[in-house]
Amino acid sequence: MTTVLHVCTTCRAGQPLPDGQTAPGQTLFDTVAQSGLPDGVTLRAVECLSACDHGCAIALSKAGGWSYVYGRMTTDDVPEILRGAGLFAGSADGIVPWRDRPTIFRKQTLARIPPLET
Amino acid sequence: MTTVLHVCTTCRAGQPLPDGQTAPGQTLFDTVAQSGLPDGVTLRAVECLSACDHGCAIALSKAGGWSYVYGRMTTDDVPEILRGAGLFAGSADGIVPWRDRPTIFRKQTLARIPPLET
Repeated sequence: MTTVLHVCTTCRAGQPLPDGQTAPGQTLFDTVAQSGLPDGVTLRAVECLSACDHGCAIALSKAGGWSYVYGRMTTDDVPEILRGAGLFAGSADGIVPWRDRPTIFRKQTLARIPPLET
Repeated sequence: MTTVLHVCTTCRAGQPLPDGQTAPGQTLFDTVAQSGLPDGVTLRAVECLSACDHGCAIALSKAGGWSYVYGRMTTDDVPEILRGAGLFAGSADGIVPWRDRPTIFRKQTLARIPPLET
């Protein structure tokens, strides 16, 4: 089942955005897009994950699995975002063993939502 | 399509929970369960929505729609939670017009996640 890595491209990471400057969320998206995505992971731009106070925000979801939203992501985090997305994609239900999760995922989870099917 | 209203029953609303006391999330769940649910809405208990710093937390989801997580909910909010859940259930894609949304949903959204199908 394909995992979708959503990156909020409008995210200003809680800061004002001067005219003409690229939103930090767009920069994060671009950095991810230029990286090699793990098997089974699709990247998708999204306008607003409603977590603006804790941006940049990303989300991971797949059919039949828990969905997760993470905040305060930066371009420095891209390697760990991709590692975590790969582990999520390889999990049965979106729940990756705690010890395996990237630290940014352990500490910067904003919310998670159960699958509709249980 | 059935809407699921998830209520985190383990939520301590950021407070210590003395032995033997009922978690605020369980009390919120019980209050919702004793209320009349809107058409098309199913209530489901969930253990942890990973939004512990902003509990009590609830989530709304349905197939093909955006999912939303709301925080800082109390039993006083139950009528508006139910009204908002009904509007969500009646929407095409989970997006309720801004002017119609309960104030608690406007101001206490923790995150939202797009549908997998777009």
